[in-house]
Formats: sequence, structure tokens, C-alpha cells
Amino acid sequence: MDILIQPDDKLLKTVLQRPEAATPDMDVLLTSIFDEITKSGDKAVRRYTTTFDKVSLKELKVTSEEFDAAEKALPESLKTAIRAAAANIERFHTPQLSEEQVTETIPGVICRRRSVPINAVGLYVPGGTAPLFSTVLMLGIPAKIANCPVRILCTPPASDGSIHPAILFAAQVAGIPTVFKIGGAQAIAAMAIGTETIPKVDKLFGPGNSYVTAAKQFAQRLGVAIDMPAGPSEVLVAADDSVSETFIAADLLAQAEHGTDSQVIFLTDSEKLVKKVQQAISDQLTVLPRAAIARKALKKSAALVLPVERWAAVINDYAPEHVILMGKYEEELIDLIVNAGSVFLGEYTAESFGDYASGTNHTLPTAGFARAYSGVSVDTFVKKITYQRVSAEGLKNLGPTVITMAEAESLKAHANAISVRLDTLKN
Amino acid sequence: MDILIQPDDKLLKTVLQRPEAATPDMDVLLTSIFDEITKSGDKAVRRYTTTFDKVSLKELKVTSEEFDAAEKALPESLKTAIRAAAANIERFHTPQLSEEQVTETIPGVICRRRSVPINAVGLYVPGGTAPLFSTVLMLGIPAKIANCPVRILCTPPASDGSIHPAILFAAQVAGIPTVFKIGGAQAIAAMAIGTETIPKVDKLFGPGNSYVTAAKQFAQRLGVAIDMPAGPSEVLVAADDSVSETFIAADLLAQAEHGTDSQVIFLTDSEKLVKKVQQAISDQLTVLPRAAIARKALKKSAALVLPVERWAAVINDYAPEHVILMGKYEEELIDLIVNAGSVFLGEYTAESFGDYASGTNHTLPTAGFARAYSGVSVDTFVKKITYQRVSAEGLKNLGPTVITMAEAESLKAHANAISVRLDTLKN
Repeated sequence: MDILIQPDDKLLKTVLQRPEAATPDMDVLLTSIFDEITKSGDKAVRRYTTTFDKVSLKELKVTSEEFDAAEKALPESLKTAIRAAAANIERFHTPQLSEEQVTETIPGVICRRRSVPINAVGLYVPGGTAPLFSTVLMLGIPAKIANCPVRILCTPPASDGSIHPAILFAAQVAGIPTVFKIGGAQAIAAMAIGTETIPKVDKLFGPGNSYVTAAKQFAQRLGVAIDMPAGPSEVLVAADDSVSETFIAADLLAQAEHGTDSQVIFLTDSEKLVKKVQQAISDQLTVLPRAAIARKALKKSAALVLPVERWAAVINDYAPEHVILMGKYEEELIDLIVNAGSVFLGEYTAESFGDYASGTNHTLPTAGFARAYSGVSVDTFVKKITYQRVSAEGLKNLGPTVITMAEAESLKAHANAISVRLDTLKN
Repeated sequence: MDILIQPDDKLLKTVLQRPEAATPDMDVLLTSIFDEITKSGDKAVRRYTTTFDKVSLKELKVTSEEFDAAEKALPESLKTAIRAAAANIERFHTPQLSEEQVTETIPGVICRRRSVPINAVGLYVPGGTAPLFSTVLMLGIPAKIANCPVRILCTPPASDGSIHPAILFAAQVAGIPTVFKIGGAQAIAAMAIGTETIPKVDKLFGPGNSYVTAAKQFAQRLGVAIDMPAGPSEVLVAADDSVSETFIAADLLAQAEHGTDSQVIFLTDSEKLVKKVQQAISDQLTVLPRAAIARKALKKSAALVLPVERWAAVINDYAPEHVILMGKYEEELIDLIVNAGSVFLGEYTAESFGDYASGTNHTLPTAGFARAYSGVSVDTFVKKITYQRVSAEGLKNLGPTVITMAEAESLKAHANAISVRLDTLKN
């Protein structure tokens, strides 16, 4: 971990730069995957599954027997935890449903705006060593609350053709009725195009490796929406020396264990605290199974010693996915932070709470996108349609305004669409 | 206008296909524009303005004298119309501001979500023959309501270095304090990068030609957000034979005059009405200054004669930017339409109302993006940040859940961030 004492703005800018988002150019590969699936549907999907996941599947779709078996296989303690987390996520996301808005802008002109669920949503959850069932909850529950009619999940099968029971149990809890054993770019392509068994979706959600990310961007060109641009996870921990170095070190490490490309920034006004935190990190690393990953991530991370007056500017420039704000400056800073995905307040609020169970969503903007993007919410699963109805009174009241403006924009046919209607009111 | 009587699904699909969104590959040109502006700032911007807009400017920024002169130059009737439209837009958009949401998900865990304005927004309004001052209102007013601290507008200068007074007056009414005389890809690049006089923005908004569209996509790769993918404007008019053919023809022509690539679909259950509408189009075309453009657009448009039972499916498959629903099936269809940008209800509700003055926004999803995207609103100018605070009680209540889940995901450091905190409560 680099330590920077009172760095100037230029140095800060360099340190806080994110690594180039190097989505490798996979256009040739992706074009072929998308073409093949367009042409041969399920057959192509199966072929890619054999090639990439080393498994030949009879059924792409998870059966109800498999769902039942998963529920039986899972320890009761984990089921209870998943249910508790789901309940909190549901409690926080339900009030995000917005009511219809009706405004009579002038007499006779009634405008409305209402949320309509996106018809078909495709969720992707990566496989690999750890089953990311928490992401199933974070995507599935808002989709259920939004009431999207078609909700499907794709996740890669293990080499024996199975899906981790925690993924299947979380899908049940989150109300995702349909799960397909498909991974990687072929899963994204299948959902973007649609096949005999996999419905075509309108929007794609979820994390993944560089193939999945590139495939989502490719799907976007075909008119399928995506949740948000993806990048490595990151945290900024801001604390003064009243805060336990053990807590700070644990939070930095929780972020660092995500991946070697994770970013971890510690912001403080105490050089002494930095030293204590470094020691605590060393101590805690010894017992972490993912210590090797965390060490690599920490190599690219930084501790910044700066007077508190500069903290808000640093945080807003960096626009981190997660900010943990602990200690005596919390109250002073909270409203000054305007660029962040999610903010964790106070010494007991480990970022892990938000990853799993506090109720907020863990799918958040990375790579500085928090300057303009929000995390996933019920909003991400709906679109808002506007409506207007103009009565004869409204036509008389507002028609002449529209005619004047349309003519000034040289759009005579626009004016005419009003005139022909006004003419009928003249008798 | 092609007339299709009872087309089957396959034929419908072909007819309703949108032309390939051919954003030409301008990577080489754009790379050079973005590089030059990064290197030389204003100097490069001026150079491009000289090359592309054929004008050498001393000042890129519109002065307060120019704003004053614009206000004086504009006819009183147009100023009154612009003010009336702005008032309606403001009335419809103000209730879109959302209140902070606070939820105690379980005792001791308080989660919040609040809207924060995007710090800097860059609006683009194209030049050309017609001054699109209505777009200035449609982007500027929601930005003002969202309270974005930095709101700038770029629009290309005329060959004498001036900006159309209606654009400047609309900017004043919409509360956009800063207008730059810059057009095309160089305007997008300048706002995405920032120069000595032009602030770097976090999000780019507004329509434009293929250079502007490509430049917005290019800026997105640099981490600048954009409002939505752009495509040609389109309308679907659905009406039975109780509706005046004059109104229908006028609405179809209002869309067709936008550009030769505009799309116009007429959906009805009466073959007789189609013939009457065709005649009305011919009659109205004779007096339209943009008849040549409208004729070209109409060549690619279609009238579909289908029983009303199939209308909702056709509309939702096409997902049009604008839907005009007139006549006796209105009530029956309104709630069945789930994919549309904005819906116009009833015989007096010409689509022109929404383009200018009803109060709804005219920046809407085209090209089928209405399946997953919403039009511009106050939401488009804010992001939502989530917050959580966990007390000692919350830590005890929810900590074990998080530990169980983190361990099941093999993320030990995540579990540890909770354990080290729980340990301090044990004494």
C-alpha cells in the first residue's frame, strides 16, 4: 500500500486513476457466437457449453426436481440467512415503486407518467469457485418487485452439469422461476437473441468476466439494454484516529479479497493511524484464504494522509463504488459526498453488510461512473411512459402556443396538426 | 405508403423492422478530434470551428449582451409561447423530484436512498436551418429542477458567428446560464474532456447528426454518461373509422416532415379509412414546405389493416417512440400498451403538443428502445445514492447472517469485517 502524505492535486490524480478498462477486442469471437446462436439456437448453445464448460447437457433448463434437491441439500443456517437477507432487500426495495403521477398542466391538458415493468429481463450470475448467490437476490428481488413478467437467470453449470444449490435456493427465494445452465458469452447471446427454450430479453443484468462484459456490450448494439458498465469493485475508507485500526484493516481486506484488480483507498488525517492499519492488515492477512489475491490488490492501493478539509473533494473526484465513513468527521462530511455508489456510516457499518443483507443493493457503479449512474434498484427494472390527453378546452388554450413554436422551428406540418383540429372547433 | 391488409406475423416483422442504425465508423476522425482537444483545448476547438462551421470566433462563450440582444430581437408572440411551454414543462417535471427514502430494515439497520444532482451536465442542440429551441427547454428545465450545479449548452454558430435568438432566449427561460458557440463532434469532445473555457461534464444530452451521435458514443468510452441511444424519430397512429382522416393525415405528416429517415406507421381496422387518409395526405402535402422530405419518409412507411385484437401486440412489438391512440378503441387499449415512449390519447391530442408544450418531455426512446428505456425526465439528471448505518443492536441482529453468507461465498475477509466488530461487543 502506497502511503502519500499531503499529496498535491496532481499526484492525487495519478494515484486515484483507475486502470484502463481493458475490455479486450473480442468482436470476431462474439460475432461468431451471436451468428451461430441466431442460426442454430439451442443447438449452438449446447455446442458452446460443451466447448467452454466441458459438459454436455440434455436439459438446459433447471427442473423442479433440481430446485427441490437444492433446497434439501442446503444447510438450514444458510437458508435462514438467505431468507433474512432477502427480507431486508425486499423491505428496502419495495418503497422504490413509484406511483403514477398526474398533472393537469393547464386546463384541458392532462399529463401522466407511470412505471411499467420491462417485459423480459435476463439475469446473469457467474460460476467459478464461489457461488454468488447474493447477486441472485440483488437482481431477482427488484425484478420481482417491479413485476417484470419474464424473469430468467443464466449461470454456468459445473462439470457434472449441476448448479450450486445456494444459487438455486436464492433464485427460488427471489422469485426467479426459470434458471438455465448456460454461462459466458453464449448465455448473454442466447438471452439477447432468444432460442427455442431461452426467451429473448429486453434488458440484461449482472456481473461477469471480460467475455460476459464484452458480450453485454455487443448485445447493446442489437438494441438490448444493459444494467450498467462494469468495472472492478472498489472501496474508499475515510477515518480519523478515533477509529479502530482493526475495523479499517478488515474493511480494506474485504474489498481487496474480491480480485487482484480491486481498488482500495484509505483516507485519513493521521500518519500514525496509517502505520497501525498497515500492521493490522499484516496480522489479518495471515488467516485469510484469499490472502494472495488481497496482497496483489493492496499493491495497487493507497493510503492518503490529508486534512479533513480536502476529503470531500478527493472522494467526489474519485467517485467510489463504496465509501465507508467512520469517526468524528462523519456528520461533517456526509452531505458533502455527492459522487458515490453506496455510503456506509459509522464504525459498526462494515461494507459487508451492504454486500449481503442490510437491504441496499450491491450492484453499484464502479470506475467513477457514480458521477452519473445509480446502483441497481426497482427503477432499473421499469421504464416510465408518459401520456397526455388534450380536451377541446386544452386545444383552445394551448393550440396557438404550439402553432407559434412549430412555425418558428420551420415545422409547418407540426403546426398543421393543431390547425386542422382547431378549425373543427370554430363552428 | 405500403398498405398491408391482414398481414401475418412474419410480414409484419419485416415491415416494422427499423433500418440498420448505421452509425458510420468515425473512430479515426473522432480519435483525432478528442486527442487534439485534450492536447490543445480551446485552440483546437477554435480550429475545428473554423474548419467545420466556417467561422473564426474570438469568444466561444455567448455574452450577456448577446443574450439581451436575443431577447430584444425575438417577436413578443414567440417569447410568450416559449414561456407558456416552459411553464407546462416545469409543472410536469417538478413532481418528478423524489423524496429521500428511509427504511429501518431490521432494528438497528437504517438504510436510506436519496437523489443527488449530477454535478455537471452538457446539453447539445443542433444548428441547421431550423433552430431547435424546444429541445433547449426539454433538456434545460429538468436539469434546472434537478438542480445540477453546472449546466452548459453547446450549439453551432451561424456563419456570421451568431446563435439564433430563439435558442438563446429558450436557454435563459430554461435557466441555462452558459452557452458556447460550438457544434458537432468538437462540441461533444470539448464537454467530455474540458478545456480552458469549457467545463468537463459528467453526462451529455441531446440530439445531433451522425457525427454528434458517434462522438457521444466515443465519449461514453471515456466514462462520460449519455442520455440515451439516438435514432430517427417515429410515430404509430392507431385509429378506427370514427376518427377524422384529416387529423390522422396531419399527424402522420408531422412525423414525416422531421427527416427522410422518420418512420410513420398507421394502424387501423378499416381499409376504407386507409384510402381516405391517403387522399388527405396528398391534399395536405401540397401546402407543406417540407413536402419533399415528408414524401421520402412516407415511401418507407406503412398502413396496417388489422383487427383490434392484434393492435396491442403490434404496438408492443414495435415499441414506438410516439403512439397516438384515437377513436373508440382507446379505453380498451390504453393499459395494454406497455412499450412506448409517450402516448397521445384522443382526437384532439396531436403529437405536436408533446413536441412543444403539453409538459411531457420530447426526448424519447426511438428504434425500439422503449422496451427498456424511458424518456428524459428529472431522473435523467440525478443519481440515487444509498446509505446505511448499523448500530450495535443492528450488528448483533444482522452480523451472524452476513457471516454465514460470506463464508458460503468463500469470502472470509467479508465475514471477518463483521467478526472483528462483533468481538468488541462481547465484553
